[in-house]
Amino acid sequence: MASVDVGIGLLGYGTVGSSVNRMLVEGADEIERATGHRLRVVRALVRDPKKDRPFPAGDGVLTSDFAALRDDPDVHVVAEVMGGISPAGEYVRELLGAGKAVVSANKQLIARDGAELFAAASAAGVQLRFEASVCAAIPVVKVLRESLVVSNVHRVLGIVNGTTNFMLSRMERGGSYADALAEAQAHGYAEADPTDDVTGADAAAKMAILATVAFGSRVRYEDVERRGIEELEAAHVSAAADLGMVIRLVGIATLLDGAVDVRVQPALVDRSHPLAAVDGAFNAVMLQGDAIREITLEGPGAGGLETATAVVADLVSVVGTSGTGFLQNDACWRELDRLPPVEWSSEFFAHLEVSDRPGVLAHVTSRLAAHDVSVAQLVQRPADGAATLELVLHRAPLGEVSGALREISAFPEVLRPPFLLPVIR
Amino acid sequence: MASVDVGIGLLGYGTVGSSVNRMLVEGADEIERATGHRLRVVRALVRDPKKDRPFPAGDGVLTSDFAALRDDPDVHVVAEVMGGISPAGEYVRELLGAGKAVVSANKQLIARDGAELFAAASAAGVQLRFEASVCAAIPVVKVLRESLVVSNVHRVLGIVNGTTNFMLSRMERGGSYADALAEAQAHGYAEADPTDDVTGADAAAKMAILATVAFGSRVRYEDVERRGIEELEAAHVSAAADLGMVIRLVGIATLLDGAVDVRVQPALVDRSHPLAAVDGAFNAVMLQGDAIREITLEGPGAGGLETATAVVADLVSVVGTSGTGFLQNDACWRELDRLPPVEWSSEFFAHLEVSDRPGVLAHVTSRLAAHDVSVAQLVQRPADGAATLELVLHRAPLGEVSGALREISAFPEVLRPPFLLPVIR
Repeated sequence: MASVDVGIGLLGYGTVGSSVNRMLVEGADEIERATGHRLRVVRALVRDPKKDRPFPAGDGVLTSDFAALRDDPDVHVVAEVMGGISPAGEYVRELLGAGKAVVSANKQLIARDGAELFAAASAAGVQLRFEASVCAAIPVVKVLRESLVVSNVHRVLGIVNGTTNFMLSRMERGGSYADALAEAQAHGYAEADPTDDVTGADAAAKMAILATVAFGSRVRYEDVERRGIEELEAAHVSAAADLGMVIRLVGIATLLDGAVDVRVQPALVDRSHPLAAVDGAFNAVMLQGDAIREITLEGPGAGGLETATAVVADLVSVVGTSGTGFLQNDACWRELDRLPPVEWSSEFFAHLEVSDRPGVLAHVTSRLAAHDVSVAQLVQRPADGAATLELVLHRAPLGEVSGALREISAFPEVLRPPFLLPVIR
Repeated sequence: MASVDVGIGLLGYGTVGSSVNRMLVEGADEIERATGHRLRVVRALVRDPKKDRPFPAGDGVLTSDFAALRDDPDVHVVAEVMGGISPAGEYVRELLGAGKAVVSANKQLIARDGAELFAAASAAGVQLRFEASVCAAIPVVKVLRESLVVSNVHRVLGIVNGTTNFMLSRMERGGSYADALAEAQAHGYAEADPTDDVTGADAAAKMAILATVAFGSRVRYEDVERRGIEELEAAHVSAAADLGMVIRLVGIATLLDGAVDVRVQPALVDRSHPLAAVDGAFNAVMLQGDAIREITLEGPGAGGLETATAVVADLVSVVGTSGTGFLQNDACWRELDRLPPVEWSSEFFAHLEVSDRPGVLAHVTSRLAAHDVSVAQLVQRPADGAATLELVLHRAPLGEVSGALREISAFPEVLRPPFLLPVIR
């Protein structure tokens, strides 16, 4: 087949954008061998075309005029690597409307406006791919959409934030939350303002995208139940260790009886579980479905180069499948209900501080029993005249477990509100 | 886009074939949504069309006449799920020659004749996909060929045999090789004749396919250096545990300075390495390359249903990309030299039994030093008037390490030939 030149446009030419250009140049032969096409960046939108760049674009490629890129008939596919909601969102809409395929690395944009953008792409008969918007180089979107088409994925478990995973791995080796945060900042994993990571906001946006793709129904960032790691204490980490588990910030997307629940929170993960092995700043996503049982993908979930490889993979896939029906359709093809959070069920771990007096244990266990919540494991430890209770609870609906704990908290012997985490085995 | 019917042929209608049919029927809507096409099995080649089948094919679908399938103009893509070299190989060649795309689940055939079959597919302008030929449902071939096109993958580490991984996980918890084998047989993981698994033959065929795809150069089954797990003893497993490692049967494919080395052998794997977390009968493949650093895919590497999902994924991908240039070309596009095995370098672990006499340690260490092999760790243990020496050696070429150990073995104080394994961290 004769090789055809395909003109690529870039929105943004920073670390990711210039790496994409470099990979397209240096990998041109590999790409041609795989697809029969040569991909070449012909336009790149930047604020200041005169600024020095790590991998310079060709003459006349950089422009500060979006219309020049949009209206260039040589631009067939555009990679959006500028980030942010606006103007990136408007640009992507305009490009799709103009019949250009788009590849986006923009987590915020896809998590917020994905459904509209997929529909716009469908209507225009062009592709929108977004592998790089979640977990960088880990090809989880492609695997979900192309390899697991008939696998009825019903659960997605993800460690999708490297910063918090680094911090929790660090706390496992001893040290407080504050120590772990300081170390993550020293390594450059955490920003000076770590809010987006430690509150689970970053992970929630990624889980919204993954759940949307896995279940074919729109899940917005706002639909994700979210709890961060800020309240975690060294005592929780060591209690987990005593149970043969680690604490991780885990995203859990569940499809149950046609309803969807997506949540991000710290969870106890059994040491023998594949997610427990994800150490440091890496990410991993486990996909559970019929027939496949479970497939786990692990790798670097962030970084400019890593993100650029996913953008290039998407460009290659767009070029390699244009003209066929492959992935022609909207990733959101149905509207599933949201599972009422109280109905979401799991095994749980609860950590309580109580006065060391007769009757406390009886009270705690009777309240649990009244809610039909059964105790799998119980450890009581003395602690300065008080005691800590660590409970592992058999699978039960969150509503029942929370209800029991609310009643338990009202008991005067309970010194602090119980700390509740799901358990993943 | 109007939906188009695509006729599918099956070579074989056993567990995998009938599961493929069932998935195509039950997943028809999902597939149409993803690709715009409806896939329907129109012919399936079997020995005895009258036999009862777990998921019956439609009327007139089963045939014992290959020509009827090959010459059926309604058959556009054929899934080869019959296994074996012959007649499967002849059938696949004829089908490609007749312009039918082929999806194969046949490890033996692809590991032996892959290069010729890829070339035949290229010449005929049709696709040959083979995801199911290696690690069942784990989409490693797709990820290598479509996501990592420009990632210059230079190393593939794989736990690609579930039987031996189950056995080694079992030995870790105590027990001999014989106990572990008996248990694997009781679970149905190991055949009555476990040769293909325990000698590394099965893993070598899979690594040959993975190395071929990863490096773009033909690696045959015979090109894979191979050593099984039969000589492993409980003492080796517990020595590994003392070093914070586990023993796994690992496939290692290396691209170094334009030369390829592929080997399968037991190796010590650090507990913090992602491959160490692969427990029981699961498989995992780690792909290391530029920019991606490392991506690990883990999941069930065997099983009829799991294999069927990979076949269906390939069918969907063939249909979704036919008519484009995607993956039009031969997976073997270059001819790389084989790295002389003596030049392959690694960290190593050596286990020796020696007489407990003065001078032994000096002899061992001086022979290693003479070959410029440096000792990272040394543990000596008394053992019934004799002693065991456990050595961890810094990275060195296999030729030097083997040379030193040969000289050490000649020393009369060495009671048994040293046992040498690579170390993976």
